[in-house]
Amino acid sequence: MTTRREQTSGESRELILQAAAGLFAEKGYRQTTFADVAERSGISRGSIPWHFGSKEGLLLAVLERSLDMIRTGLAEDPDAAQGAEAGFDRLMDSAHALFALPTTKLFVTLLVEALEPGSPIHGRYVEIHDTLREHCRRWLERLPLPPGLSAEALAVAIIGAGIGIHQQWLLAPGRVDREQALWALRALVAGALLPDRE
Amino acid sequence: MTTRREQTSGESRELILQAAAGLFAEKGYRQTTFADVAERSGISRGSIPWHFGSKEGLLLAVLERSLDMIRTGLAEDPDAAQGAEAGFDRLMDSAHALFALPTTKLFVTLLVEALEPGSPIHGRYVEIHDTLREHCRRWLERLPLPPGLSAEALAVAIIGAGIGIHQQWLLAPGRVDREQALWALRALVAGALLPDRE
Repeated sequence: MTTRREQTSGESRELILQAAAGLFAEKGYRQTTFADVAERSGISRGSIPWHFGSKEGLLLAVLERSLDMIRTGLAEDPDAAQGAEAGFDRLMDSAHALFALPTTKLFVTLLVEALEPGSPIHGRYVEIHDTLREHCRRWLERLPLPPGLSAEALAVAIIGAGIGIHQQWLLAPGRVDREQALWALRALVAGALLPDRE
Repeated sequence: MTTRREQTSGESRELILQAAAGLFAEKGYRQTTFADVAERSGISRGSIPWHFGSKEGLLLAVLERSLDMIRTGLAEDPDAAQGAEAGFDRLMDSAHALFALPTTKLFVTLLVEALEPGSPIHGRYVEIHDTLREHCRRWLERLPLPPGLSAEALAVAIIGAGIGIHQQWLLAPGRVDREQALWALRALVAGALLPDRE
């Protein structure tokens, strides 16, 4: 049973995480201070280190939270799909939904941090990329792939396209139509791997 | 005519740029100091700000240099190709060559900086992405594209795949086969857009 005190603590934690996720995505990790997080969350500045230790601890917790959201988005097992084509539509629908999450913007922004040498979130990022590739690979393995083309390599290319489309859009939202590019990716994959689809 | 003094100055500048490009790619921009650059280049620490003003100025100059290398890599005009298929092979060959350049690793590492709010290199990155997309788009416009699919949107997806493949590889070189993934991308594009190729 949750005590009143624990419940309040959990609520504060969630308010801090929501505020930090928004600020990291908007201002970047380095530019965000505990004072910013306190102001946006309405939780006192002093209780942030009590919940998360350091700013790095807060970053890791924000990343865990966004990883949970990504996992939920991928929760449907591709093996359960009715057929390869239905599986393809579901895969692409969930990719579309994933990219529409605000947490995905944060995820791409924090990649910046993950690539820095000695980054505390490097390991988590490797894990997230593995999860995404694995999900894509399992779907691809159910298709009759052209000879010489592995599901593993295709998964890297497809997940890569998702990441790279998103980054071009983040860099220049006025010049890049993310939605159209995701549809183009879908058409490339369908055209190459499901030629009898039409 | 170049005086002896100017020539030496140009040589020092190039040595500094080479050293900085290597260090930025290995250690990251923020972790690299003028002292590191001086040590690797063999040029005195004091002359670095004389050439580039600030560390930001050095970063911009390194980026300009890598932009020149990318432009040279794309120099062959896609319009000059003999046919769409020959054009495709040349496009993909130049993409492969581009990704093999050490400067590309630097380019991806510095994207980190470009995405930070208020970054001094943001504008240059927008320009580089535009150049890459434009090159790809011009090639795509020569193909009979499936209805409803624009060259612009496909260019974002294809350039995005190149960027995203590279980043997955940078994050976890032991888990991602960049070369195989680039071949898979090539197969996706050929399979979807050049169906009569085989």
